[in-house]
Amino acid sequence: MKLSIDAMGGDHAPKEIVLGAMKAVNSYPDIHITLVGDENKIKETLTNHDRISIIHTTEVILGTDEPVRAVRRKKNASMVLAAQLVTDGDADACISAGNTGALMAAGLFVVGRIEGIDRPALAPTLPTIGGEGFLLLDVGANADAKPEHLLQNAIMGSIYSEKVRGITNPRVGLLNIGTEEKKGNELTRNSFDLLKNTNLNFVGNVEARDLLDGVADVVVTDGFTGNMVLKTIEGTALSIFKMLKTALMSSFTSKLAAAVLKPNLMTLKNKLDYSEYGGAALFGLKAPVIKAHGSSNAQSIFSAIRQTREMVEKDVIAQIQKTVEETNTSKIEL
Amino acid sequence: MKLSIDAMGGDHAPKEIVLGAMKAVNSYPDIHITLVGDENKIKETLTNHDRISIIHTTEVILGTDEPVRAVRRKKNASMVLAAQLVTDGDADACISAGNTGALMAAGLFVVGRIEGIDRPALAPTLPTIGGEGFLLLDVGANADAKPEHLLQNAIMGSIYSEKVRGITNPRVGLLNIGTEEKKGNELTRNSFDLLKNTNLNFVGNVEARDLLDGVADVVVTDGFTGNMVLKTIEGTALSIFKMLKTALMSSFTSKLAAAVLKPNLMTLKNKLDYSEYGGAALFGLKAPVIKAHGSSNAQSIFSAIRQTREMVEKDVIAQIQKTVEETNTSKIEL
Repeated sequence: MKLSIDAMGGDHAPKEIVLGAMKAVNSYPDIHITLVGDENKIKETLTNHDRISIIHTTEVILGTDEPVRAVRRKKNASMVLAAQLVTDGDADACISAGNTGALMAAGLFVVGRIEGIDRPALAPTLPTIGGEGFLLLDVGANADAKPEHLLQNAIMGSIYSEKVRGITNPRVGLLNIGTEEKKGNELTRNSFDLLKNTNLNFVGNVEARDLLDGVADVVVTDGFTGNMVLKTIEGTALSIFKMLKTALMSSFTSKLAAAVLKPNLMTLKNKLDYSEYGGAALFGLKAPVIKAHGSSNAQSIFSAIRQTREMVEKDVIAQIQKTVEETNTSKIEL
Repeated sequence: MKLSIDAMGGDHAPKEIVLGAMKAVNSYPDIHITLVGDENKIKETLTNHDRISIIHTTEVILGTDEPVRAVRRKKNASMVLAAQLVTDGDADACISAGNTGALMAAGLFVVGRIEGIDRPALAPTLPTIGGEGFLLLDVGANADAKPEHLLQNAIMGSIYSEKVRGITNPRVGLLNIGTEEKKGNELTRNSFDLLKNTNLNFVGNVEARDLLDGVADVVVTDGFTGNMVLKTIEGTALSIFKMLKTALMSSFTSKLAAAVLKPNLMTLKNKLDYSEYGGAALFGLKAPVIKAHGSSNAQSIFSAIRQTREMVEKDVIAQIQKTVEETNTSKIEL
């Protein structure tokens, strides 16, 4: 199996990317990794050349770049070349911790869509209290979605959860502002009607306040709402930890007690860190494209590689392609 | 000033409602309160009859009732009668901790809309790390909003923040999935164009992850997204506290340390409890209608009364009416 990785994307590139790749080739004897990026910088960290090759380029897409324009103009950017390897058949899947929008654009324009999927969906696995996690899609800021997009999200998320996460008959929930069937806006009401007439294990509407309780394995929504909810979860968690820190550091006694609790609090923080669950998968493309968290360290990159390897091994894309063909979702008239 | 209160709404009614009302008449010599509900039950708690009267009714709208139907059929429900007092000129404003949807329906059908406001907006004040809080509107699950509704929300929220919360020139932000002007869906893009051409202190798009950092004083959004974000904040905070509790109770040492930290953790929890900021105001009606939190205790009811009193005293409704007339927001063509 051949994986291409954008070695220059993310806050700690290329060092942590290279370390993660080295760890992965040591753990999985069946993978070969191509790191795309500045050869000199990569070689500062790369000590293990076994099944890791380098494609040299100095062009990089920045976090501040306008995604679509960057992908179109920076043809030699590490991210674009990593995607190009997939298109050329020189890699089975690619990974980047760089600019999310740009990776979505590279996926769309370079790797290309599966026929029958109207728009790719970005899907992170988010933490739950019980630790099992759930897949949320779409969080890709795709605006103005249609019901058939949500159905496609449900199909793709369901297949992924079954094949890669090993969940039998995954529960699919529709993110909504109430659990009753008629709740919500036009999009959710029409999507509900579509979803209930499928073979999916559709559990109905799920509310945002119950997400972290593990109310469903796959939660579908439009890219605007999903992005909003994802950022709200992140922002709220971050704010609470900031407040918690201030509260714990407020006196000498509380500092002492906090020191005792530090391991417990770190465990909690890690549990909430969704990069632990691997990267966010971009579904609906002709090959797996994985977005690792921007702040990825070697361990997160390793998780993303493990996840990508599973997607390739379990042939998730072919399964999605087959199911979408059978369902013919884009032809649905409401 | 005369305020009517639904004595039977909320998890701890009528006891905590009555206690809150008693506290309020003791603090504010200028108010008279009419408690609407079961006289016998109210009298079990009511020891101070000074400036508190009772209107007896045994009909109650339940949390499980379908809002619009309940308001139309249960004409003698405590909530409906409390709203009716406002319409009849026997109260200047009303408060309920009962069924949110039903209170919105009672506001709309019994109290009535301000001319020029297309739909009332439900607006809680949410906590921020700095403690100053921000007003989020609409969270009322109104689906499929139009840009002019968001403009109306901005006007109403701005006037309230200035008059009642004492914020000079309140910063108005548009909730969006990115800060750049062209981000978002059709609704946010068109709303951005409307908002930037007003006299409001419009600070542009704000992201959900920055809300608790106090990025704006007034945050406007459609009722679907607002409801989603509100419930996500609540759900995330609740889940983190659950996880925190488990983490702190995991060993003997951590239990000891947790006991030391309990006051700090309680302070943090209270800081996040938005019922401390008073109730959620329903804007766009001919009189102030305030939704106190369902789990309100006497203190939250007292806060809601204080807030309602401020709204009446500062004549927020007349100010909204005047500004809406001048702006003529419902006539805006895009």
